[in-house]
Amino acid sequence: MQINKHTWCIIMAGGLGSRFWPISRTDNPKQFIDVMGVGQSMLQLTFHRFEKICPRQNIVIVTGDQYVDSVREQIPSLLPYQVLAEPLRRNTAPCVAYAAAIISQIDPEATLIVSPSDHAIFHEEKFIADIQQAVQTVALRQWIITLGAQPIRPDTSYGYIQFNEHPSLPRALNLHKVVTFTEKPPIEMARQFIASGEFYWNSGIFVWSLAVLRKAYETYLPAIAETFFSLGFGTSWEDLERVYSQCESISIDNGIMEKADNVHVLTASFGWSDVETWDSLYDVSHRDKDGNAIVSGNVFTYDTHNTLVVMPNDNSKTLVLEGLDGYIVAASDDTLMICRRKNEELVFRFSSDVELKKLIDNK
Amino acid sequence: MQINKHTWCIIMAGGLGSRFWPISRTDNPKQFIDVMGVGQSMLQLTFHRFEKICPRQNIVIVTGDQYVDSVREQIPSLLPYQVLAEPLRRNTAPCVAYAAAIISQIDPEATLIVSPSDHAIFHEEKFIADIQQAVQTVALRQWIITLGAQPIRPDTSYGYIQFNEHPSLPRALNLHKVVTFTEKPPIEMARQFIASGEFYWNSGIFVWSLAVLRKAYETYLPAIAETFFSLGFGTSWEDLERVYSQCESISIDNGIMEKADNVHVLTASFGWSDVETWDSLYDVSHRDKDGNAIVSGNVFTYDTHNTLVVMPNDNSKTLVLEGLDGYIVAASDDTLMICRRKNEELVFRFSSDVELKKLIDNK
Repeated sequence: MQINKHTWCIIMAGGLGSRFWPISRTDNPKQFIDVMGVGQSMLQLTFHRFEKICPRQNIVIVTGDQYVDSVREQIPSLLPYQVLAEPLRRNTAPCVAYAAAIISQIDPEATLIVSPSDHAIFHEEKFIADIQQAVQTVALRQWIITLGAQPIRPDTSYGYIQFNEHPSLPRALNLHKVVTFTEKPPIEMARQFIASGEFYWNSGIFVWSLAVLRKAYETYLPAIAETFFSLGFGTSWEDLERVYSQCESISIDNGIMEKADNVHVLTASFGWSDVETWDSLYDVSHRDKDGNAIVSGNVFTYDTHNTLVVMPNDNSKTLVLEGLDGYIVAASDDTLMICRRKNEELVFRFSSDVELKKLIDNK
Repeated sequence: MQINKHTWCIIMAGGLGSRFWPISRTDNPKQFIDVMGVGQSMLQLTFHRFEKICPRQNIVIVTGDQYVDSVREQIPSLLPYQVLAEPLRRNTAPCVAYAAAIISQIDPEATLIVSPSDHAIFHEEKFIADIQQAVQTVALRQWIITLGAQPIRPDTSYGYIQFNEHPSLPRALNLHKVVTFTEKPPIEMARQFIASGEFYWNSGIFVWSLAVLRKAYETYLPAIAETFFSLGFGTSWEDLERVYSQCESISIDNGIMEKADNVHVLTASFGWSDVETWDSLYDVSHRDKDGNAIVSGNVFTYDTHNTLVVMPNDNSKTLVLEGLDGYIVAASDDTLMICRRKNEELVFRFSSDVELKKLIDNK
C-alpha cells in the first residue's frame, strides 16, 4: 500500500520509566533503552515501525528538553521540527496539542497517529494494516479511533475500553463505538471486564484528522486549545515555558477520550504490551524450557527457573546464576539488582535508598 | 623485640586460587586479590606482616614466571633476588629449595620462615610473637617447627597434625613433637581428631634454620637437593627450566614433614584460615545481624540472609539484593556469579563452561 503524504505520526517520548530501575533512570528512561534485547531501543523500534506507515519527515517526536540529545543521537538526521522539546511534563494532552500545532503549520490536511514511544508491538504487519485501516477510516468519518488490544489477563495496571457493536459497520472491520474508559480497575472488576467480552485494553494509540483533533480540544480542553494552537515555529523558548507552566496537566484519555462522543475502537490483533513493569517484560519475552527469560546478556543458568535476566547488551560481561527461582536479575552499567518477581514494586524503594546514599556519600 | 638480620622469609605466591572463581583467575589468582575487602591483597597483607618480623630485604617471594609483574606491582622496590620466578609449577618442595639456595648465597646463617602468600591471620600480634618464639627455638634446637592452628570445626579440606606432649619442654611453650600428618581426612575422622584434642590444623607455615633445611632435603629429597642447591644468581633461565622440568612435583608436607623425625608443632593461637573456599571466607568474615557477610562492595540488602557478597572494591558499582538466603554473590570486573553456598564446588563447572564458550565464540 502506498504511503500517504498527509499521514503524520506524533511519538510521545517524555516518560521517566521509573519502574524499570536500575536499567531505566530519569537520565536515561525506558524509551531510550533496548529493553527487549533486540539491538534497538523502544524509541528506535517505534520510529522504524512508523517509517513503514508515513513519510519519515512526517514523524514528530515530543520529549522532555533534557532528552532532545538522546533522541537526536538515536534517530539521526531528523529535521528541526521533528524533535519538539517540552519545558515541563504536563501529561499527554498538552504534548499532543503542541505537536499538532506545529504540524498544522506544515500540513493543514494532516491525519495524525498519536503513539507512545515505549510500547511493544509483536506482529508488525498486522499493526501496519490496523493503523492503515484506521487512517482510511478517519478520512471518511469524523471519528477519533483508538486502537484496542485484546486483553489476555485481568491486568489492573491497564486502561479498559468498553465498546458496543457498531450498527452501521460490518463486523469484519473490527470497529466499535466506545462506551466507557476505565483506568486501572480493581482485580475483580478487571476479571468481569474480560469475562464479558466487551472490553479491550487501551493501547494509547490514537488516529484522527487534524480537524477532528482541533475540534475535540476546542470542545473539551478549550484553555489548552487556545494557548497551544497559537504556538508555531517562531515561538520562543520563554513563551513555551510560560505556556507549559500555566497549562493543566491532563491526559488525552481523561481530557478528551472519556468525554468525546465520536470515539471508536479498532479491536486490533497485533499483540501489544506497554512493558511498564519487569513482570510484563517477563510475560512478553521468550522463555527457555526452565521458564527463564534471558532478554539480554551472556548468561549461564544452573538449576534456575522462572527468572528474568536483563543485562547490558555487552558480551564482555558474564553472569552465572545457580539456584534461583522466580527472580528478576537486571543490571545497568553501574547497578545490579536481584529481586523476587513477586516483589518488583520494591524497585521504587531500592532506587530511593540508592540515591539517598549517593547524596550522603557526596556530602 | 629486635629484628634479627639472619631471619628470612620465603613467601610462596605461585598458587592458582581456582576455587575463588570468578574473582580469582589463572591470570590473577587469589594472592593478588583483596579477598578480605581490607584494601590490600593477600600477598600485600602477608608481606607487610613479615616486615614486622624480619628485615624487608630478607623477604623472598617465589612465584610463577607469569606473576612476576603482579608481584613487583603490588610490592614495589624489591631487589632482584626478592622475586624468584619458577618456570613450572612443581608444588612447594622445589619452590622452597630454590629460594633457600638463593638465600644461602647471601646469608649462610639464615633462619627461614616459609609461608603461603594467601592465608588469613586474624591476630597479628600473637602471630608475630609465635613466629619469634619459633625463630628463637630453632636457633637452639635442630628442629623443624610447623605452626599449628587450633581446629574449630571438622573441616575435611585441611591437613591435621597429631602431636604428643614434649617431655623435656614446659607446657607453656606450646611446643610438641609431631606424631602424624593427615591430609584431608573423611568427616568422621576429622570429628574424632577434634574430639581427641591431639590434633591441630597444619597452617603450612614452617620455621627452620638453613642448615636443618638442607639436611632434611638431602635426607628425604636427595634428587631435589642435588639439583636445586647448585642453583644461584648465575643460573640461566634455560638451566632453571631444565631443572624444573626434570624435578619431582611434591609438597614439603609429603616430601619432608611426614618423614622427618625432628618436626615439632607450635600450637598457635593467632587465628588462621587458608581462605581456600567461598564458605571459609564467609566463616572468617564479619557478619551483620542477618548473617550476611558483605566483604566488599556498595551493597543494599532487603530480606536477605546468610549471604556472602564480594564485589570489586569500586564504589561506583551498586548491588541490590532482595530475597536471597544462603547465597554467594561474587563479581570480578567482567563476571558476576550467584550460587547457593552449599553448592560452591560448582564453581569449577561454571568456570569451565564460561571458558569453553569464550573459546567457541572466538573461533
